[in-house]
Amino acid sequence: MKYLRYKKDGDVCFGVLEDDRVTKLDGNYIEGTAEKTSVTLGLEEATILPPVDAGQVIGIGLNYALHAEEQGKPLPDEPMMFMVSPSSVIGEGEEIVLPTLDHRIDYEAELAIVIGKEAKDLSRENALSYVFGYTCGNDVSDRHLQKKDGQYTRAKSYATFKPLGPVIETELNPNDVGISLTLNGETKQESRTSDLIHTVEDVLMEITAVMTLKPGDVILTGTPSGVGPLSPGDQVEVEIEGIGKLTNHVQK
Amino acid sequence: MKYLRYKKDGDVCFGVLEDDRVTKLDGNYIEGTAEKTSVTLGLEEATILPPVDAGQVIGIGLNYALHAEEQGKPLPDEPMMFMVSPSSVIGEGEEIVLPTLDHRIDYEAELAIVIGKEAKDLSRENALSYVFGYTCGNDVSDRHLQKKDGQYTRAKSYATFKPLGPVIETELNPNDVGISLTLNGETKQESRTSDLIHTVEDVLMEITAVMTLKPGDVILTGTPSGVGPLSPGDQVEVEIEGIGKLTNHVQK
Repeated sequence: MKYLRYKKDGDVCFGVLEDDRVTKLDGNYIEGTAEKTSVTLGLEEATILPPVDAGQVIGIGLNYALHAEEQGKPLPDEPMMFMVSPSSVIGEGEEIVLPTLDHRIDYEAELAIVIGKEAKDLSRENALSYVFGYTCGNDVSDRHLQKKDGQYTRAKSYATFKPLGPVIETELNPNDVGISLTLNGETKQESRTSDLIHTVEDVLMEITAVMTLKPGDVILTGTPSGVGPLSPGDQVEVEIEGIGKLTNHVQK
Repeated sequence: MKYLRYKKDGDVCFGVLEDDRVTKLDGNYIEGTAEKTSVTLGLEEATILPPVDAGQVIGIGLNYALHAEEQGKPLPDEPMMFMVSPSSVIGEGEEIVLPTLDHRIDYEAELAIVIGKEAKDLSRENALSYVFGYTCGNDVSDRHLQKKDGQYTRAKSYATFKPLGPVIETELNPNDVGISLTLNGETKQESRTSDLIHTVEDVLMEITAVMTLKPGDVILTGTPSGVGPLSPGDQVEVEIEGIGKLTNHVQK
């Protein structure tokens, strides 16, 4: 099932997407309370919002071997965790704003995990049952600040730096789907999640060995090789097989 | 005023502390809705909770010159930000649990800022008016993982690694109070916040240039020199002039 949040006549609504038509739900799917209503609308009649009002946003660094190579970094033997502010999240169709033109600011296509149940000390075996679903993410990153600070939080937390969406797909094998990114129509990143060094189960196990995850928390699982800079006016699209396409423009 | 959260007969309550007596409030002070009730109790009759149900927890690295020197790191010219999970927060009197005895795990006394109003793009002039108050913090850190990961999130996010409390003091000049830490009664850290490289106003200005802060978010402003390891059975106390003393034991 494909779930989405949208705005209609000023109200924030939750819905299910089937064949480009949205069926409104009577509650928040993340809280597990949502039932279908009799209200339906065309996708073009709604303003799509980020599919989750994110709580914690946790990123995993260097989780594809070719990306670690292009960054000149050794492969981490355990998932490398960092956190970014949820105030950086935007949705399908919203504009990415570059805070400065003096720094290189890169796109990064990523599979994003959305947590459905409170989770601590997960095992590889039970980890996926705590996931609500999966969405497309773009882990926009200021490379100058990332290098300067050492810590990634600032470089990746600017407002608009975390596009997520357009929908959360609940039926997906997260460890074997195609992931790609196009910039102005040209393919820049293309990989499969089967190339993840640390699988989705591993990532969930390692994070919850440390912290408690809650429904609505988001984990960005790392980006494949092919990252590069964004410029004003660019169109950037992250596509994940089985989920869909997340399109954002960079503000001119 | 000294505000605190506590548990009494299974209920989470908000209160004001005056002369070791607690006056119960009818709402959450962080939301600005709390009025005094006629209920009072002795401090010893309540179980003290962390004074804030923390949202984002943002740390500042290397913000005292002597601590940067003891860590062998250059002084950052801008506040170095990282984030930790709020699931690491505990309160006055709760036990710090060391997840392993194989790593060096250090105490770090810090002044903690508690945000009172949604804040973005603050100026040095208006920054303090967005603060609800200040509390004592202990930024417990696994030095092995901090070095291994490069990113600080994992090393500082284990459950029980962020003692906060016992109260939030709303009347304080945050840039000129004494801060100290004792381990089993012996003074290990002793400084003044006037030694902060980046003042409280600077820290708020730089963080909100990037992200939006919300009521209940917590900022740990950095630790003075004198950090050192914790061992099972230790008693660690952070004291900040005008706020009080935060006491925790390390689990045996």
